Amino acid sequence: MAKSNLELVKDCDSFPYYEDDRAYYTQNLSKYYAFRVSGFDATLGYILNTVVGRFPWSESWTVDSSAQTVTLNAPADATPALRSKLVGDDIAQSVKLGLFEVLKGWRNEKYPVYGLGGEYLLEMERSAACLFGIVTYGAHMTGYVQDATGLKIWVPRRAKNKQTYPNMLDNTVAGGMCTGERPFECIVREAMEEASLPESIVRETVMARGCVTYTHVRDARAGGETALLQPEVEYVYDLKLDPSVIPKPGDNEVAEFQLLSIPEVQEALARGEFKPNCAVIMVDFFIRHGILTAENEPDYLEIVARLHRRLEYPTASHCSK
Amino acid sequence: MAKSNLELVKDCDSFPYYEDDRAYYTQNLSKYYAFRVSGFDATLGYILNTVVGRFPWSESWTVDSSAQTVTLNAPADATPALRSKLVGDDIAQSVKLGLFEVLKGWRNEKYPVYGLGGEYLLEMERSAACLFGIVTYGAHMTGYVQDATGLKIWVPRRAKNKQTYPNMLDNTVAGGMCTGERPFECIVREAMEEASLPESIVRETVMARGCVTYTHVRDARAGGETALLQPEVEYVYDLKLDPSVIPKPGDNEVAEFQLLSIPEVQEALARGEFKPNCAVIMVDFFIRHGILTAENEPDYLEIVARLHRRLEYPTASHCSK
Repeated sequence: MAKSNLELVKDCDSFPYYEDDRAYYTQNLSKYYAFRVSGFDATLGYILNTVVGRFPWSESWTVDSSAQTVTLNAPADATPALRSKLVGDDIAQSVKLGLFEVLKGWRNEKYPVYGLGGEYLLEMERSAACLFGIVTYGAHMTGYVQDATGLKIWVPRRAKNKQTYPNMLDNTVAGGMCTGERPFECIVREAMEEASLPESIVRETVMARGCVTYTHVRDARAGGETALLQPEVEYVYDLKLDPSVIPKPGDNEVAEFQLLSIPEVQEALARGEFKPNCAVIMVDFFIRHGILTAENEPDYLEIVARLHRRLEYPTASHCSK
Repeated sequence: MAKSNLELVKDCDSFPYYEDDRAYYTQNLSKYYAFRVSGFDATLGYILNTVVGRFPWSESWTVDSSAQTVTLNAPADATPALRSKLVGDDIAQSVKLGLFEVLKGWRNEKYPVYGLGGEYLLEMERSAACLFGIVTYGAHMTGYVQDATGLKIWVPRRAKNKQTYPNMLDNTVAGGMCTGERPFECIVREAMEEASLPESIVRETVMARGCVTYTHVRDARAGGETALLQPEVEYVYDLKLDPSVIPKPGDNEVAEFQLLSIPEVQEALARGEFKPNCAVIMVDFFIRHGILTAENEPDYLEIVARLHRRLEYPTASHCSK
């Protein structure tokens, strides 16, 4: 059964909206505890009740079951490094006790957590981000060629042995942003690492085109515990390539690159061959390039809004000015 | 005091968000009645309490002050034409009694109202749309020139005697969509009427680039009653023009066109010279063209999300397939 573009978006942006059904939204939210840091008036993520029940909360934390909050009680003068250590120690303990499947996919990369106004509060191991339901950040680039026969997109297939979503189709270049990294530098680095694209071409030609945001509820396809929240920001880039420039796998994460026509990409999307969050980046590309329009896509307005979900948590500022 | 880009967005998307402050959102919503049509399970707009108190509701309506709903009780087999007549009769009575300032700006154009799944329910006079708080639809196009000196935008100034926002700066071409009109045909028509752009150039070159959505709360600048809700969908188009093509006023709504550089447009935006909803279309253009980026705009994520608000009402499908 072919997936519609709205179904692809719903697969990725799968957390309910308050305005659709206020009672259901509130009931669903009761399955989670709010993750907070003392001294900061913001919910930084949502932790599934079953995770709250199993996580080895040390004395650094206050778990309030009536307010449904889990609060890190760092000292008032704590640095981000200290907060990170307190969180990290308990995550390490979880690994030691083998409590969570998702931590078996240990990445050894640190993801940042921001408070109001984009204040950097702490960082934590990437694979633990979904346990705390914190916002994560990445950059996705669509490399395309425009010639007399039309527009074609460079589409990689993920390696068969990749830990997550093996063998699925992906965006030309995509990667997560660790603490301290900015979107532009992330995409330049990933373009070299994943697609062997020359740094000079990427720096001079790549265009920032906005961002796609959504709240994903992890399902079986992601592996590990399900119903964990994964709110994400993906900075979106386009790179128009000369037909003579051929991306090629630069690490062992990509099996191969194919240059696909728009109908070929659309058919692969409809067959569910793209990794879910890469599918929505393609849908965004089609909207930005006038391939999907109000006149040919029945769910146009719902799709555009859901590609840009306003996240209910403080988010980063990557501004360098 | 120069306006930031986020302030420009907030000027336009001025209705609160539930996730920011649940208590305030709910309290603010209590200033409005939900507009409904019997037989259709959806809120179609929000009507300010003071409007509910003054509007001459005929026997076609049920006003429920405990549920805070105003429901049009059309017969179960009513056609859109009949529903439109029932609503239109009471709007006409309001005009006769001189009850509302906004109706003094009578447009003699009909705006459609849609139920779930984009079902067409009824239409009403354009100037009454904000009394009922229904979603309205328009199309905005940015005409630009790219030459050796960079990108420049054709910016019109509204006529001094225009009813709304006189003398302010506007998008190259913009217009509201009446019942039955689709976005592409709307922008082609308006490009000829407002900017004297040749139809063939527009049809062949204009590119659909998505849409911008927001919920505006009318303030004094709009004229007439304040605090009325105006949720809007603006389909967004770009038109790259050859430097030899010069737009010129085609009707009496535009005073003049100027070709402005990006810094000139940004300075005019910061001075508040653009009509509020045209300002956000410019901000969207800057994001889509890599002029505003995550690295140079501190409020990038909040801006992108709020340019694409998910409206809490059923919306149209303009799909012709």
